[in-house]
Amino acid sequence: MSTDYLPLPGSPVEDLDTPALVIDAAAADENIRKMQAWCDSHNVGLRPHGKTHKTPFWAHRQLKAGAIGLCASKVSEAEALVNGGVSEIMITSEIIGRPKIQRLISLASRGNVIVAVDDEANVRDLSEAAVARSVDLGVVVEVDVGQNRCGTLPGEPTTAVAKAVDAAPGLRFEGLMGYEGHVVGKYEFEERKSGAEQAMDRLLSAADAVEAAGLPLNVLSAGGTGTYNVTGAMDRITDIQCGSYIFMDGDYLLALDDFRPALTVLAAVISRPAPDRAVLDAGRKSISIDRGMPRVLGIPGAEVVSLSEEHAIVKLSGSGRKPDVGEKVAMLPMHGDTTIAMHSHYFVVREGWLESVIEIAGRGCFR
Amino acid sequence: MSTDYLPLPGSPVEDLDTPALVIDAAAADENIRKMQAWCDSHNVGLRPHGKTHKTPFWAHRQLKAGAIGLCASKVSEAEALVNGGVSEIMITSEIIGRPKIQRLISLASRGNVIVAVDDEANVRDLSEAAVARSVDLGVVVEVDVGQNRCGTLPGEPTTAVAKAVDAAPGLRFEGLMGYEGHVVGKYEFEERKSGAEQAMDRLLSAADAVEAAGLPLNVLSAGGTGTYNVTGAMDRITDIQCGSYIFMDGDYLLALDDFRPALTVLAAVISRPAPDRAVLDAGRKSISIDRGMPRVLGIPGAEVVSLSEEHAIVKLSGSGRKPDVGEKVAMLPMHGDTTIAMHSHYFVVREGWLESVIEIAGRGCFR
Repeated sequence: MSTDYLPLPGSPVEDLDTPALVIDAAAADENIRKMQAWCDSHNVGLRPHGKTHKTPFWAHRQLKAGAIGLCASKVSEAEALVNGGVSEIMITSEIIGRPKIQRLISLASRGNVIVAVDDEANVRDLSEAAVARSVDLGVVVEVDVGQNRCGTLPGEPTTAVAKAVDAAPGLRFEGLMGYEGHVVGKYEFEERKSGAEQAMDRLLSAADAVEAAGLPLNVLSAGGTGTYNVTGAMDRITDIQCGSYIFMDGDYLLALDDFRPALTVLAAVISRPAPDRAVLDAGRKSISIDRGMPRVLGIPGAEVVSLSEEHAIVKLSGSGRKPDVGEKVAMLPMHGDTTIAMHSHYFVVREGWLESVIEIAGRGCFR
Repeated sequence: MSTDYLPLPGSPVEDLDTPALVIDAAAADENIRKMQAWCDSHNVGLRPHGKTHKTPFWAHRQLKAGAIGLCASKVSEAEALVNGGVSEIMITSEIIGRPKIQRLISLASRGNVIVAVDDEANVRDLSEAAVARSVDLGVVVEVDVGQNRCGTLPGEPTTAVAKAVDAAPGLRFEGLMGYEGHVVGKYEFEERKSGAEQAMDRLLSAADAVEAAGLPLNVLSAGGTGTYNVTGAMDRITDIQCGSYIFMDGDYLLALDDFRPALTVLAAVISRPAPDRAVLDAGRKSISIDRGMPRVLGIPGAEVVSLSEEHAIVKLSGSGRKPDVGEKVAMLPMHGDTTIAMHSHYFVVREGWLESVIEIAGRGCFR
């Protein structure tokens, strides 16, 4: 369905068929510039997470601005970036099992790939595969900084895995990563700040123990959009892994306004069955609701009361404007990453014109 | 990414790479047979909703069993079915705006297409486009049976639109449809029964008024999986639009056990960072959570406590089995339709072997 869209680049935005994933190019550019400028002035690397955009197009804009590389969640997502010309990739998940490890090694033979580990058996598997293909694979040990997802505990468990990596042929021990995913989405800055500080205490204590064991760290990577200016301001952190800042979303905007909303889903009114009701042609198959209902932009008082698979039911306020059938309406999703994952194209808009239509190369790359 | 999967058909299911959308072929076949047998014995047509599977492969199995045609939510979804050889399609949403209407008319020139309307201006647009292309387009008027989404009210408003359709050149008035979407998911049968009866009272009263105005009805279409045996048992209903019954899902299984669960997402354990915790490689980008957290199958006491974009965090019970890193685990999504919409392939399994890998042709077809 790669041509399932209208119109072509160069057309006025009013002609866009719906639903469409629309990016405000100026806002995204500004977000890219602003985050990079912050990192540059704080002497920390920016390694943007590609799980948000899944697309070489945006990765290259981030790299041109000064990013040191991209992150990816999965091997296939990393492939989509490397295939599009990105050469520095950190895979922030553990890669388990022979088929995925073989893919990973192939990828590492044509890009500089760093992968996360938290288990010595996995270290052995990676090492064997790397040696068999004469490939040099970068490895960071993932530390559980309080998210209680993957990762080793700081101290002896982390140090043991780090030593195993360092001793394993074919593997290049790069350092540690930790992701304070349990903190980045808190709405109050003070909560994010204290949460990130506690999380980074764990990462730094893990780093101390690893260095004390004689293993120098090139990489100490952490952070997300919500904690960029806390985690990124810490002396020893080498780089931050922010993803959402490029487009923001309704949920992140409740937490911080340092970056501009750049992502909307354009929908159309397909029914006006009652004076206070409009039904739009975008539902759960084009806007995620895992962080709540999308917001309606441009119609004061209008509110999404329910979202079915292909419809949004919008309640119109008595005093607000009443859109006609056929009118196009912009919706702000509460969660960008999971919304983007359902689309095949970005419609990139600048000053009212469709500037480019970008295929989402990493769409569905969850393996 | 159409080859982003392993292994090939004919392989043992243990070799499947994860996450993978797995269909138990025997269960799906039995569901198709059982729903069709029920409809046959109750003298009602079955017009399965293609929004669930989005795939000619499953549509043809339903048609071979005896279905009278398929439903689709969107023009592009209908295209995916017609392109795969399905010739009878009812589009259950209003199709608004010139680009989509042009697509619809092209589709109607190569299949028997019926479309829903609820607005006289839309009737004029459809008629003009059909006449310009000398195409005959079937039309049903959508009645709001209490869902408060799209649709006209029973009585004069519905009759007025029906008359407009009947009078419009290029359009063929087929009848009425109503969808009791506010009722189908209730967990108690008695609630579904009384709710569907109320909803169908509205549809039948609309039908009475339309017939009294001299317009005979070929089609009086309604119903979903949760109400098949209530709505489908009503004398005047010509066909029911059930979709989910083919695979079922965790949420529907809480309401009825007439059909077997056929759909799971296979995931793998990628980390065992604590004795009571396993982390799987499937998250919100491969399993929807719009109706709740997926269930873990095959590990007694195991429970998904959180699902991030690419990870499921599973709490293991003290007494239950503890899966190793690398072990594959089947997850039952609470909502099939929105889970399927994120995948590119079905992995169809029979007796432990991968029987076929089916591309989801209608994936992303939300226009």
